Amino acid sequence: MYMTRKGILFIISGPSGVGKGTIKKAVLPRVGDLLESISATTRKPRINEEHGREYFFLTEEEFKTWIQQDKFIEWANVYSNMYGTPREFVIKKLEQGKDVLLEIDIQGALQVKATMPEGVFIFIAPPAIEDLVDRLCNRDQDSPESIAARLAASEKEMSYMPLYDYVVVNDDLEDAVTKTEAIIIAERCKISNLNMG
Amino acid sequence: MYMTRKGILFIISGPSGVGKGTIKKAVLPRVGDLLESISATTRKPRINEEHGREYFFLTEEEFKTWIQQDKFIEWANVYSNMYGTPREFVIKKLEQGKDVLLEIDIQGALQVKATMPEGVFIFIAPPAIEDLVDRLCNRDQDSPESIAARLAASEKEMSYMPLYDYVVVNDDLEDAVTKTEAIIIAERCKISNLNMG
Repeated sequence: MYMTRKGILFIISGPSGVGKGTIKKAVLPRVGDLLESISATTRKPRINEEHGREYFFLTEEEFKTWIQQDKFIEWANVYSNMYGTPREFVIKKLEQGKDVLLEIDIQGALQVKATMPEGVFIFIAPPAIEDLVDRLCNRDQDSPESIAARLAASEKEMSYMPLYDYVVVNDDLEDAVTKTEAIIIAERCKISNLNMG
Repeated sequence: MYMTRKGILFIISGPSGVGKGTIKKAVLPRVGDLLESISATTRKPRINEEHGREYFFLTEEEFKTWIQQDKFIEWANVYSNMYGTPREFVIKKLEQGKDVLLEIDIQGALQVKATMPEGVFIFIAPPAIEDLVDRLCNRDQDSPESIAARLAASEKEMSYMPLYDYVVVNDDLEDAVTKTEAIIIAERCKISNLNMG
């Protein structure tokens, strides 16, 4: 190959419960050379989650220190927990010409867009609002109050879709994964992402 | 699906002998809902080519009348033969929200770019110049003089690559077809190609 390429930052984002985490997990092994950024959070680990694998689990005090030291490219307070993306890993990998994938909520994506507009922003959309209710109710992680709050938030979050580059409607998981994979392959073929010799 | 989409014009183009016709033929059955534009030409039909299927075979006089009547979105004189893309079919299908595929040479693509810059321009590039020589020599359609002329043209044509949106290096056919297919799928997911309700 006589052309080299800049590292690309891919952001997979969308309303709560839309299935963006599932899509990300299915896409990663199918697309080579894509590094996942690990977020930091103050929320408690769920069963099977490990520090440094799913998240860096920080205390609120640690998290605030990281904010003060400008160690996040985005961070947010979501349902009383703090989430953030450590800056160093992302910047270093992109500079090395490697692609990085972030799976983050919409507030986070908007912050990343503000400082790294060259990123590729993929909005995972629910097929219909009824379907989103079903998914939130069936994953057994949320109280009825939490589900109601998430739904209200989701509706507002849909209005941010026009700020993204791509939309993938998650009406069929295999189809959504294929589309997300296609977006990654296509972006790697973009002339504007090449280093012209 | 609660979102509708504009018709997208895809242009597959590149130097002579790069394999763009082969890629196009492999991509069409794999990607649904993609209409191929049929070009007009004054060159003689090859064996197995049919009027109205591979090309509209026109006399030089007929072709010039079409030019005068502004019936082409692009046309060119290549190696003493004229080639052109009839305008009506393309415009009509795009207006109906259908995607259209053009496989054309670089001169043609530049003309389309001038009048329809919203098209998606895919440059099929050879893996290396030596490989292009092999292909031209092995397809038994060209005289040594014709091969020399095509190679000189190809080198010049490579310089137009930065005007395209994507580049697909045809070093492996299956890989090149997968990438071209991915570009089509990804473009269909672009927010800027949606009709926002």
